[in-house]
Amino acid sequence: MPILNKDMQVCISLAARPSNIGTRFHNFLYDELGLNFAYKAFTTTDLPGAVTGIRALGIRGCSVSMPFKEAIIPLVDVVEESAAAIESINTVVNDDGVLTASNTDYEAVASLLASHAVDPSASVLLRGSGGMAKAVTAAFRGAGFERLTVVARNERTGPALAAQYGYEWVAEEREASATDVVVNVTPLGMRGDQQDALAFERDRIDAARTVFDVVAFPSETPLVRAGRAGGKQVITGAEVIALQAARQFERYTGVALTDDQVRRASEFSRSE
Amino acid sequence: MPILNKDMQVCISLAARPSNIGTRFHNFLYDELGLNFAYKAFTTTDLPGAVTGIRALGIRGCSVSMPFKEAIIPLVDVVEESAAAIESINTVVNDDGVLTASNTDYEAVASLLASHAVDPSASVLLRGSGGMAKAVTAAFRGAGFERLTVVARNERTGPALAAQYGYEWVAEEREASATDVVVNVTPLGMRGDQQDALAFERDRIDAARTVFDVVAFPSETPLVRAGRAGGKQVITGAEVIALQAARQFERYTGVALTDDQVRRASEFSRSE
Repeated sequence: MPILNKDMQVCISLAARPSNIGTRFHNFLYDELGLNFAYKAFTTTDLPGAVTGIRALGIRGCSVSMPFKEAIIPLVDVVEESAAAIESINTVVNDDGVLTASNTDYEAVASLLASHAVDPSASVLLRGSGGMAKAVTAAFRGAGFERLTVVARNERTGPALAAQYGYEWVAEEREASATDVVVNVTPLGMRGDQQDALAFERDRIDAARTVFDVVAFPSETPLVRAGRAGGKQVITGAEVIALQAARQFERYTGVALTDDQVRRASEFSRSE
Repeated sequence: MPILNKDMQVCISLAARPSNIGTRFHNFLYDELGLNFAYKAFTTTDLPGAVTGIRALGIRGCSVSMPFKEAIIPLVDVVEESAAAIESINTVVNDDGVLTASNTDYEAVASLLASHAVDPSASVLLRGSGGMAKAVTAAFRGAGFERLTVVARNERTGPALAAQYGYEWVAEEREASATDVVVNVTPLGMRGDQQDALAFERDRIDAARTVFDVVAFPSETPLVRAGRAGGKQVITGAEVIALQAARQFERYTGVALTDDQVRRASEFSRSE
């Protein structure tokens, strides 16, 4: 890493509880590619003030995490259509004071469904109904999937999410019929209290062709391990987080990354 | 320089035309001392917005250059007495949202008068009447100098500056009597159009004991060279800029620097 200089363009992130992932991912690639950029995670208790600062200081880009993904919408100038549809932003680019917002989580999931060649005629069971579940559901709809069931205990957000994308909702997994693709967009399996939780019934996993877990830490969740053990096609949250960061990187710098660069930056970002 | 991380404290500078000096000075020492800090120069056309951003992002410190040294005063919470007296701020420290402002140019000049043991009974001729001239004049007054003449063609700021500190003003150098100390606080001798200009008459320099040039780029101005050639005591702008940066560093990090650290950081900052 060269010492900072006055001409560097600065990108930041805003999150209630910043992780080191973005900071390491982006700076690793700035260094490798010789780009005069620096990236630094921040937290704030004053989101409008932070956005004012982004404008006033000419900060080039801002990655947006929980709990700011919706609240930042009225503070930017342009919202890309795919982000507007899911009412969730994770990326802001500052072009000479014009802030354009997008959602690279959505883009990453859409891209992974294509690159893994998941068959749009497959039936899908998706667990979750939060903001990220919305981005993932929108990506399935955008990729042409007709048969998707949202399973979520929340009787407000669950049916609302399903209805928005023309899918069905069930409160309990046992109410859903057999499915080809299972997708977890809840904290089940995430490092912490729920790290041993398997996001779907074992019989369901056995019957599936594809297992997709959006949990990124760890990437080898119980669901992913069960999928691998059963010889299923597996898509991990580590892939989602790396690809969404790559899309941000490309927006901030204008530089497109190779798969190998994304892979190595992702490994570096997770290796501390 | 280690790769940036989320926990780094960030210090910035604000200037109409940022130089690389502060960015290199501070980051050199962060690296050498193993402090988890990063420093980056910014410009802005929205000073209130930039200060809002400093608060909202929890930026630890901000160095303030032209043309913001006065305008930032109403935007901070506390102004140290020495800075309030000269109505000029070059340093803001953010303690959990409370912004405290000071002027380390003033402190650096005061410290240099002491460390060079300039005799307070000496007569002083000081050229200039801008914001920095005010800081320097205040430092002479604070150090107990009774006999100082401000030479400045500006018939508004010149007499006002002299009167504020109980000194006399002349419009032209020839109106001043012989002096022991000559001090240049104008752009005469600075890199650019005026780099060949000698800030005082040669006879005046010959008669002086001490030559003090606040111009920092280059540090070897015609005035400084004439002083060295004449065997005078010489104080340079490079000393001022290094010492004021060191005072900022100490306020931002809580770490006091040795003379050797200041000297090496200053050399590094000027060597790009």
